[in-house]
Amino acid sequence: MMARNVTQKLIGDHLVSGEMKTGEEIGIRIDQTLTQDATGTLVMLELEAMGLDRVKTEISAQYVDHNLLQEDHKNADDHLFLQSAAQRFGLWFSRPGNGVSHPVHMQHLGKPGKTMVGSDSHTCANGSLGMLAIGSGGLEVAMAMAGEPFYIKMPEVWGVRLTGKLPEWVSAKDVILEMLRRYGVSGGVGKVFEYHGPGLDSLSAMDRHVIANMGAELGCTTTVFPSDDEVRRFLYRQGREADWVSLLPDEGAEYDRVVELDLTQLEPLIALPDSPGNVVPVREVAGRPVYQSYIGSSANPGYRDFAIAAKMVKGRQVVDTVSFDINPTSRQLLENLMQEGLLFDLIQSGARLHQAGCNGCIGMGQAPATGRNSLRTVPRNFPGRSGTVEDSVYLCSPETATASALTGKITDPRDLDMDYPVLDEPKKPVINTQMLMEPPSPEESRKVQLVKGPNISTIHELEPLADPLEVEVLLKVGDDISTDEILPAGAHVLPFRSNIPRISEFAFGIVDDSYAKRAMETYDQGRRHAVVGGENYGQGSSREHAALAPQYLGLRLVVAKSFARIHWQNLINFGVLPLTFDDPEGYDQLEQGDVLILPHLQKSIEQGRKLTAEVKGRNQTVALKHDLSPRQIDVIQAGGLINWVRQRQ
Amino acid sequence: MMARNVTQKLIGDHLVSGEMKTGEEIGIRIDQTLTQDATGTLVMLELEAMGLDRVKTEISAQYVDHNLLQEDHKNADDHLFLQSAAQRFGLWFSRPGNGVSHPVHMQHLGKPGKTMVGSDSHTCANGSLGMLAIGSGGLEVAMAMAGEPFYIKMPEVWGVRLTGKLPEWVSAKDVILEMLRRYGVSGGVGKVFEYHGPGLDSLSAMDRHVIANMGAELGCTTTVFPSDDEVRRFLYRQGREADWVSLLPDEGAEYDRVVELDLTQLEPLIALPDSPGNVVPVREVAGRPVYQSYIGSSANPGYRDFAIAAKMVKGRQVVDTVSFDINPTSRQLLENLMQEGLLFDLIQSGARLHQAGCNGCIGMGQAPATGRNSLRTVPRNFPGRSGTVEDSVYLCSPETATASALTGKITDPRDLDMDYPVLDEPKKPVINTQMLMEPPSPEESRKVQLVKGPNISTIHELEPLADPLEVEVLLKVGDDISTDEILPAGAHVLPFRSNIPRISEFAFGIVDDSYAKRAMETYDQGRRHAVVGGENYGQGSSREHAALAPQYLGLRLVVAKSFARIHWQNLINFGVLPLTFDDPEGYDQLEQGDVLILPHLQKSIEQGRKLTAEVKGRNQTVALKHDLSPRQIDVIQAGGLINWVRQRQ
Repeated sequence: MMARNVTQKLIGDHLVSGEMKTGEEIGIRIDQTLTQDATGTLVMLELEAMGLDRVKTEISAQYVDHNLLQEDHKNADDHLFLQSAAQRFGLWFSRPGNGVSHPVHMQHLGKPGKTMVGSDSHTCANGSLGMLAIGSGGLEVAMAMAGEPFYIKMPEVWGVRLTGKLPEWVSAKDVILEMLRRYGVSGGVGKVFEYHGPGLDSLSAMDRHVIANMGAELGCTTTVFPSDDEVRRFLYRQGREADWVSLLPDEGAEYDRVVELDLTQLEPLIALPDSPGNVVPVREVAGRPVYQSYIGSSANPGYRDFAIAAKMVKGRQVVDTVSFDINPTSRQLLENLMQEGLLFDLIQSGARLHQAGCNGCIGMGQAPATGRNSLRTVPRNFPGRSGTVEDSVYLCSPETATASALTGKITDPRDLDMDYPVLDEPKKPVINTQMLMEPPSPEESRKVQLVKGPNISTIHELEPLADPLEVEVLLKVGDDISTDEILPAGAHVLPFRSNIPRISEFAFGIVDDSYAKRAMETYDQGRRHAVVGGENYGQGSSREHAALAPQYLGLRLVVAKSFARIHWQNLINFGVLPLTFDDPEGYDQLEQGDVLILPHLQKSIEQGRKLTAEVKGRNQTVALKHDLSPRQIDVIQAGGLINWVRQRQ
Repeated sequence: MMARNVTQKLIGDHLVSGEMKTGEEIGIRIDQTLTQDATGTLVMLELEAMGLDRVKTEISAQYVDHNLLQEDHKNADDHLFLQSAAQRFGLWFSRPGNGVSHPVHMQHLGKPGKTMVGSDSHTCANGSLGMLAIGSGGLEVAMAMAGEPFYIKMPEVWGVRLTGKLPEWVSAKDVILEMLRRYGVSGGVGKVFEYHGPGLDSLSAMDRHVIANMGAELGCTTTVFPSDDEVRRFLYRQGREADWVSLLPDEGAEYDRVVELDLTQLEPLIALPDSPGNVVPVREVAGRPVYQSYIGSSANPGYRDFAIAAKMVKGRQVVDTVSFDINPTSRQLLENLMQEGLLFDLIQSGARLHQAGCNGCIGMGQAPATGRNSLRTVPRNFPGRSGTVEDSVYLCSPETATASALTGKITDPRDLDMDYPVLDEPKKPVINTQMLMEPPSPEESRKVQLVKGPNISTIHELEPLADPLEVEVLLKVGDDISTDEILPAGAHVLPFRSNIPRISEFAFGIVDDSYAKRAMETYDQGRRHAVVGGENYGQGSSREHAALAPQYLGLRLVVAKSFARIHWQNLINFGVLPLTFDDPEGYDQLEQGDVLILPHLQKSIEQGRKLTAEVKGRNQTVALKHDLSPRQIDVIQAGGLINWVRQRQ
């Protein structure tokens, strides 16, 4: 057998279909799943709709860390629903306030050598343990729970060879910022970044989490670290040494490309507004006034990330115009910081202590004032993500954020008149699993009723594709329609994420606010409908609601010049047929109000790539084509993945 | 001199007008003011509009404790505005995250023997120190800052004579719940409840804060406690013994009525949904399932209130279906709980720790799930106040809330198999004033510019009353129009509390959604307008915006059958003339679209109670009358209090 790198070992050991050739579709067996509350409610509704009795993974865990604010009943009702669903389907459940999914999973449930998919883009953080951990859409996670393989194109594997040792005042966050400085926010697309080399020795498992986590910002398929003695030490300190296995690259293992990164050469870095890719040395922007310094999130979740801040502020006061926000990762972290007296030092210095969770990292509170500079240890600074439209968010290490809180302006921590604090881990760490509930036995699970507040609906029955298909074109749109235009996000829409009938009222509202009403009327008359699109239809966010909500309103066919990849997949997953024009000029032939008939649909799809649609009453046809795999043809004929899985159970 | 009780001493020593006869209007000199962020922004805009250079009180303090969530720029911008306004006008400023106004004021700024008005209904809490502390509308607080007296009708003074000693598992909250059980939510209207008697000896100053605070729920003008050795001890432990003066009722002092309350006889009590007055013994409702137990707020702010919870849960776990929410009062409290190891015990047991502030008590997060029982140590459980429309909130002591968290159902703490914990205060308490900023010197203050985010406007120039007054009736409404109908509250309106032009768009929207638009058009044509109302016009909430927003739109005259008292006062304060029909049938004579002319207005108002309005083009008159005092006539002719004060400076 050829010498393999860690990524090849992880994939090879879980391969169920395809070949490990770059760009080829492979199917991978999934051992673990991770869902959080913002995406998890729809996943649980999907499991309900599939009729799943119990998850087939080794470990599936549902976290509540995103929507903790509870300004009305909706989030609180979602928490109860998720708790009941975890119990019903056999998931672990991390209660509200227990902490951020990625570090909590790493501490208590992640295992070297295992695969995981998660409905959160930072799922890759658990690559720090020697896992293959990939973020994906909710329905794909639901499929993994149902025992189905996870399909991706075989990524390139880049080996990042670390040498040297981080200088004082430079920490793991600066490593990943350096990667972003070099490769930008799409530098990792289609690639796994696998870290190796002698420099690893000076990076703790939690430091590696910081680096692995922000693989998402590089656009990576995922980040992989080996499972070495440091991982063994980490698991030992969590009382889980038995979960450790060694997973190292073979001697002579190769990578599609090797990147050299000398830790000794790094300096404090900072990403300027409004992209994680806008990285410069801190000294280049030193002196700009600071409104907020924010410590926390899955991008700096470790004990050391808070301990360094505490040691820096001990006996000092942050400037009285700075909001110094401390967002603890978990209850366990809070306890350890308290036990070591460090939380006290933070509060004394002027910190605002928030509950354990994602908080401001996802715009749940702590929005900065208009136009003021906010320095954050979080992974993202896209415009408006903080909650403030005209925001100005910088990404940096805890050292830089804290130094800047002490001076009131952006400060390279090396320019403080301060010795680099000595950091010791707690001698006897507190381990807290009290709010991480084990799944009940299958017998107990079957007795559990799902708890649904008034805002939580059931996913409607998805109907198999009609044959012949007759649909009216209710909407014709131009090029580059994004999923934000198909189904917007935002504070007035997102609360209905668990309520498909309600959220569907917002479908295409930005483009044509009569669409939802017309679609529902058409549906009530027993008819289904189509949408005609231009190039790059469905670009942008991967949100599944952009497929499911119009489907609820009766959408069964989208004909476009071209599709964005993820939305195209989502349409299939929810039983909506995506076709393209065989000749782009077909687009001009169709108008709103046209009725399309696709006779012998099943036969045509199975026989080849081309189909012909008749335009009713116009004695005219349009030449169309499809790009569905045989499996996808099965899925779409069943009315989507939920039905398809149900038929196979 | 006659023997005086504490209330009579406080009032008598500050009396500037009137006589201390029950029901007579008296003017009181004000030593201190308290404003919080939800009401404070308008107060600061009023100070700006008055042209005030510096507050004339001994101490004015601006707290930021209500709107801490910062989901977008508005709250964060308000915080910066308030900080700049505090510096400009010479106020103390308590930074976001420093804590809840009432206990922080008591610990650091309140003084026995002083008077205080505050734009928060629980201002009465500082009666615990031997202060006369009264909650009121924002403009009255602004007037006090400008050095004007505060006017009220001389209240009755009821003496609550405490005897005995609280039994184990019964604490101060049960004392005020017993008062609410006896007298209900309007039992204190027009009264000061002054506590005295030997039972005081077993109540700490913070226990007295608990009782004083919820005088608001009894409807009291305020609550008064003496300043005795316990207050001295309290101030000593805050490093402020020098601020102590003795303030005791004279030997033989009398009260309008004396109420006996034997502490020995009390048992754990609980207020059922949806009123603080629905009080029953806990055992009467024991066994009901509990979704949430919530410790915190100005109604149980003391170290002991959290310490008792911590000692009860130490080494135990709350039931895994209960959300055990800990809302620390202040950074100082957090530090003391940490220093004594108690915060650790709370977190270990399963608590969710929130930032220091008002939080869920005012519906800022922690809303319960639909229809689930929430046990809270907060002062109020009005329907929906928690943020959840169908809520079910109970009010109780920390002992009862914690006992119920441990069992998952409503539990009388005496029914736990547990010894009553021994509570010691910290030997060396942490005192933290770092986030309580002193006012700058007058010279420094004058250099400060107000910092106004895009949502913060300036109060428009209020014009003096025209003479003759010619106004078109733009709206005619029926009886019992509330201030909620004049200007609604709610999440879509309140964010504009600092933005009069924007909030005025909601004026009368519930009654007639064309009003605001028509009013603005009329205004733009250079004309002003009137509203005609029935009986009890302006009932309900005291919010000032219900006067100021229609005034902004050009309202200069309200003619009604009768007025609710506070709104009538608010109209005058903002320069809108409130008149009543001399004959109620006058109401039927007027229609929307009529133009009323009041000739020789100034002379008519000054000469007597009666006025005549001509209905333009109809050769008809309507007989009207007013009930303005000479001072109020001056105010309304100036165009409201802001102008009136400005003229006097």
